[in-house]
Amino acid sequence: MNNFEQNVKQLLINLNIYDEKVNLQTFYAALTHTTYSNEHKSVKDFQYLEFLGDSIIQFFVTTEIYKNFPNYKEGIATKHRSYVVNNKTLSTIANKLHIPNYVRASKNAFINGKNDKVNSDFFEAFTGAIYIEKGLDFVSKFLKDNLNSYIHNVTHDDLIDAKSEFQEVIQMHGISKIIYKSEPINEKEFSSSVIVDGQTFGTGIGKNKRSAEQEAAKNALKNLISNK
Amino acid sequence: MNNFEQNVKQLLINLNIYDEKVNLQTFYAALTHTTYSNEHKSVKDFQYLEFLGDSIIQFFVTTEIYKNFPNYKEGIATKHRSYVVNNKTLSTIANKLHIPNYVRASKNAFINGKNDKVNSDFFEAFTGAIYIEKGLDFVSKFLKDNLNSYIHNVTHDDLIDAKSEFQEVIQMHGISKIIYKSEPINEKEFSSSVIVDGQTFGTGIGKNKRSAEQEAAKNALKNLISNK
Repeated sequence: MNNFEQNVKQLLINLNIYDEKVNLQTFYAALTHTTYSNEHKSVKDFQYLEFLGDSIIQFFVTTEIYKNFPNYKEGIATKHRSYVVNNKTLSTIANKLHIPNYVRASKNAFINGKNDKVNSDFFEAFTGAIYIEKGLDFVSKFLKDNLNSYIHNVTHDDLIDAKSEFQEVIQMHGISKIIYKSEPINEKEFSSSVIVDGQTFGTGIGKNKRSAEQEAAKNALKNLISNK
Repeated sequence: MNNFEQNVKQLLINLNIYDEKVNLQTFYAALTHTTYSNEHKSVKDFQYLEFLGDSIIQFFVTTEIYKNFPNYKEGIATKHRSYVVNNKTLSTIANKLHIPNYVRASKNAFINGKNDKVNSDFFEAFTGAIYIEKGLDFVSKFLKDNLNSYIHNVTHDDLIDAKSEFQEVIQMHGISKIIYKSEPINEKEFSSSVIVDGQTFGTGIGKNKRSAEQEAAKNALKNLISNK
């Protein structure tokens, strides 16, 4: 075993995944970047396991949402799933488990560090490897442990992305540039205005920039509808 | 039980899905079109179950492909999955099982018949309902029975869509209009030419129009590469 291989085994031990029947090769692949497999022919990389892991995560999260929120409309269910399954969330979890630290890549692959997309890809590949080596029950438990808080601690406002909705509506009119002007109005609150073609469409106040912008977009949508 | 409900029960009996523990409401929803639920408030429609069923089908097919074709590159695996999971295939299966015949919709919803997208949506919703009422093992068996031939009887040419690839290459050059001229050259063969801006880029011969066009596109791609 070289260093990479020993470290991967240690990672699996740390995460309570390792047992003697586990084929470590599957995890070596899951943690091998394409830049490494390009330089070392015959070495498998993470991509096929990522493809597999992605479908497992989608299936797991969709099922959990369906069972826990049986009265959803499909639209809100889709938003809920996107809130859970996205590069930022999966990257956060990957980092929490220290998965990206164990990746092998070519020397210059990640000079500027690994971004959310990269970390998320490795989380998916790692999930695929767990499924292959430990089965569906085990990987479901793994996903439950790591994703449950994202599935259950969601507010309605997390799911309604007014900024995206406003953008969609505006783009239907062929206009693409939307500007948000935001500033603190006191120590605890921000104010935000959404401006299209020099015209203010809505304003909002919130406890941070993000929520002020969401409020502004929500009000802009309301104004659009009431002016129709 | 009204007619719709009796028919749905019969469908489940015919497909060996029915047992006394099955909650028929789940299948009523899976077979209810939005046009019907719009007219009858408090009636659930197929959409949420379609969302669920889609993720089950993707997971099932991805897993089968991974396990049966372990040496694939991710790109060809994606193509293989699209070859299996698409509206046309799922619609064919839906029709084979007579699922669309049992759908309830508003009077004028399907005057011109149901298209592949509609049939495919109901197959996904029906799959979601089976999963909820009968569990993962049962739905996996159901999908195996119906999708296995598409997963296994695939040739390399089925997966390589030369027409799409040629289109992508041409569109990178900002040209969007590609014409295929095809004609029978004898009783058993077709000839096809692919023409862009009045210029023939490739020709091909095949046993039907589709394969002649694929050959033409393949040769057009070859010509493009060799002229570089």
